[in-house]
Amino acid sequence: MTGTRGYHHGDLRRALLAEAVRVIEESGPAALSLRDLARRAGVSHAAPAHHFGDKAGLLTALAADGFDLLAEALTGAGDDLLDRGVAYVDFAVRHRAHFEVMFRPDLYRPDAAELVAARERAGAALHSGVAALPEGRPTAEDPQGDALAAWSIVHGFATLWLSGALPARVGDDPRAAARAVAHRLFPKT
Amino acid sequence: MTGTRGYHHGDLRRALLAEAVRVIEESGPAALSLRDLARRAGVSHAAPAHHFGDKAGLLTALAADGFDLLAEALTGAGDDLLDRGVAYVDFAVRHRAHFEVMFRPDLYRPDAAELVAARERAGAALHSGVAALPEGRPTAEDPQGDALAAWSIVHGFATLWLSGALPARVGDDPRAAARAVAHRLFPKT
Repeated sequence: MTGTRGYHHGDLRRALLAEAVRVIEESGPAALSLRDLARRAGVSHAAPAHHFGDKAGLLTALAADGFDLLAEALTGAGDDLLDRGVAYVDFAVRHRAHFEVMFRPDLYRPDAAELVAARERAGAALHSGVAALPEGRPTAEDPQGDALAAWSIVHGFATLWLSGALPARVGDDPRAAARAVAHRLFPKT
Repeated sequence: MTGTRGYHHGDLRRALLAEAVRVIEESGPAALSLRDLARRAGVSHAAPAHHFGDKAGLLTALAADGFDLLAEALTGAGDDLLDRGVAYVDFAVRHRAHFEVMFRPDLYRPDAAELVAARERAGAALHSGVAALPEGRPTAEDPQGDALAAWSIVHGFATLWLSGALPARVGDDPRAAARAVAHRLFPKT
């Protein structure tokens, strides 16, 4: 189909998601409404509902895109878990709207098929980084526990960085600071 | 002074903060308004403004209370850093409204004297746990880096726990799960 402004179907969907990212970066997910989104994108009222059903549907699509982007960022960083940890923080800083929505499952439909598949791809990328750790470490018998610890430390650093709560001495390079933090949990393999 | 319903000054202030915690637990900090708070607490419109000035003033007081409660929880857990890490997560779970506001410095006045003092008490409690670590660990030369890593891992675990994003296999006891995670960073001293 071609809709308002002659968008093709997939293009309009992408344009609406990109506009939603801008609204969330400015004002957070609570401020988002499908009607306002249509107005900002210059399309008919009905277009966002046609593509996403409702606000939860839109945020489900946005979170699924986020998990896909995260999976790409993690696998693109290579096999080393420390490099993947730095890539996690870098993803959060570069895609803060996605990152915020992904970890607010109360705002979307966490059981939607597209969301489950994307989340599993991101989880697998984290777990395969843990599987590449050297054998001799103290907790080698519990890779799921290792993965949860790795997730916690990079998620915590990213969250503190984005909140503006860190002291100035941490510096202004999130990748370098994240590497120093994550290095304490899993030294470079 | 005695205000509406005969509250004494400090009691009314505490009652308004307690009501604010309930609103934030139900609907998040964006939903909070001083007018609604006055209505819910059964006091005059003017009472919240008299005590806190504006919404940012109320959230500054709430965040300062949160950092004080956190400092108490950390020091009450003893000298061991792992025990203090578990206490951090336990604090976040039991005081989720405070925890959410504390790490949203965009919502309050982070330079307010009461806030700075309370935040420094909480930071000192975290750092003194790091100072109690054994000498032989690999990163003994950088206790601030150790403290940031410890903060990141417990903050990340607490944030993931509260968001509902963790898989079911993590279980339903946040203290036990937090201990297993934080143990990987700093084994029991």
